Amino acid sequence: MSQSAGLLSLVADDIKKVEDKMRSGIPERHQDLQSVVDYLVGAGGKRLRPALTMMAAHLYPVDVDKAHSLAAAVELLHTATLVHDDLIDNALFRRGMPTLNVSWSPAATILTGDFLFARSAQLSTETGDPQIVSMFAQTLMIIVGGELNQLFNDGHKNVPTDEEYRQRIYAKTASLFTTGTKGGGILCGASDLEVQALYDFGYNLGMGFQIIDDILDFRGDEEQVGKPLANDLRQGIATLPVMIFNRQHPNHPTILKAVRRERVTNDEILDIVEKIRASGCVDAALEEAVRYVRQAQAALTHLPAGPYRDAMHAIADYTVTRDF
Amino acid sequence: MSQSAGLLSLVADDIKKVEDKMRSGIPERHQDLQSVVDYLVGAGGKRLRPALTMMAAHLYPVDVDKAHSLAAAVELLHTATLVHDDLIDNALFRRGMPTLNVSWSPAATILTGDFLFARSAQLSTETGDPQIVSMFAQTLMIIVGGELNQLFNDGHKNVPTDEEYRQRIYAKTASLFTTGTKGGGILCGASDLEVQALYDFGYNLGMGFQIIDDILDFRGDEEQVGKPLANDLRQGIATLPVMIFNRQHPNHPTILKAVRRERVTNDEILDIVEKIRASGCVDAALEEAVRYVRQAQAALTHLPAGPYRDAMHAIADYTVTRDF
Repeated sequence: MSQSAGLLSLVADDIKKVEDKMRSGIPERHQDLQSVVDYLVGAGGKRLRPALTMMAAHLYPVDVDKAHSLAAAVELLHTATLVHDDLIDNALFRRGMPTLNVSWSPAATILTGDFLFARSAQLSTETGDPQIVSMFAQTLMIIVGGELNQLFNDGHKNVPTDEEYRQRIYAKTASLFTTGTKGGGILCGASDLEVQALYDFGYNLGMGFQIIDDILDFRGDEEQVGKPLANDLRQGIATLPVMIFNRQHPNHPTILKAVRRERVTNDEILDIVEKIRASGCVDAALEEAVRYVRQAQAALTHLPAGPYRDAMHAIADYTVTRDF
Repeated sequence: MSQSAGLLSLVADDIKKVEDKMRSGIPERHQDLQSVVDYLVGAGGKRLRPALTMMAAHLYPVDVDKAHSLAAAVELLHTATLVHDDLIDNALFRRGMPTLNVSWSPAATILTGDFLFARSAQLSTETGDPQIVSMFAQTLMIIVGGELNQLFNDGHKNVPTDEEYRQRIYAKTASLFTTGTKGGGILCGASDLEVQALYDFGYNLGMGFQIIDDILDFRGDEEQVGKPLANDLRQGIATLPVMIFNRQHPNHPTILKAVRRERVTNDEILDIVEKIRASGCVDAALEEAVRYVRQAQAALTHLPAGPYRDAMHAIADYTVTRDF
């Protein structure tokens, strides 16, 4: 935590203002909604998406208030999707705090997510840039499309191909990273080449970040990650470490049962986790994440040098060394 | 049906193109999503919102393709909120056809609604007008805010005040009517006075339309309306006929029990429906709706004369004479 806080110190004041914007804009008569939004914003998170957005914007002379709106829109879109996801997955905790659906009805949870989508869209319009607003709508379609694909593909019941996995983690994570970094550049009138570099940075960092997330599901300490080991596989989702293991040892019965949504015991899960760890597949997945992160860092060379670019480089390094 | 179809014949070709746009824009790999959107669009509805949007736009020389995008965005926003509402209310039928949640999981239903929000936002950006895009985000906040208010206000458990009722039907219906009509004017570069008149038309027509909807809940034939009599009151929602009755006969036990969400028998409901009908309160509510509709028609006088304005006038008349 202190390591990531250190990396983000350059934008710490910005993040405070971004959080203020995330809490703002709720009509006075909606006091209950205000308290729930305060709760969600207070529950925090690493704020990596708004931090990267602000760093991208600070590479250039920037209208800081508009950049705060952009960053707040990015983080609220993220928050809105999490609110609906937690309801869908019936998750009880997120970041160690009870989710909305623990104390709220599904109705209130659905509507709160909807409200946050609207508020995110509204904040995106405060940038005054139609291209940015359009990008937000597109990103939401990509994120939701990815989730729907996953739901519908339950019928296929196979370990995903590399291409399917890439599409999934792009939709889930990298797409919104690009919205923030590319959006920051567009807002500041960066050149086409630079906007492309910011996209490449966000894309590759997001892909690497999600692979690490998927790895932590196998490697992490349950306490720290805040969910059971191999949580994805327990839900029938095979991620990169499983995919690599499956290439070496096709048709392992536990993996087949898991992706077919058949009942798998806790002992079977712990056994396959042990096998995957021992096989070197987690390390192989880590190498893939590192490759993405190095590509993200390579994209930075096309961008203006200075403390913000250095911080983006350091965050990329942190992404692959983090342990939660 | 034929009466409303006749009134809409002026924009029948437009509506076909609007429906095409509503079905479009779904990535090819999402075939399941495509079929569900086709189903939702095919399930129809009166298409009053897109029709009014197109008529407003046709008052002026218009970029028709952009107007179709605007009208499709309006109707998809409406559709998205209905998809979530039906899930929240656990409704099994809408317009005589099974709702999504009958055959789909809550997860798929939530995500389909989210996708439609995103697609609506994207279509609104196709107008190329930041003010219109911003208005969509604002409208979604108003609609969802109104629903949340209703959920949270369950705690108050009173017959609503006139002001609370006005706020509710504005959020539920009139707000999106104004988005369509005002949006049509903005898109065509109408003058401020005309944009205001289009807002006033949409607002007053929407208010009148919703009051009629609330009246039909008491007056209608169950078969034709497609839901049980006094469905709102059964769910604890007191609408204008009940509010007027309550002024004349305060503290009727059935009404008190209903708004307090206590158990009310079917016989008690049928008895109070009979009393409300006999009291003249339904007619008094109708007078209120007619007042709104006349104000809508008065606003039309500030707009360019011609067949489209005449059609808008006729639709307003139809609104208060319709029986479903």
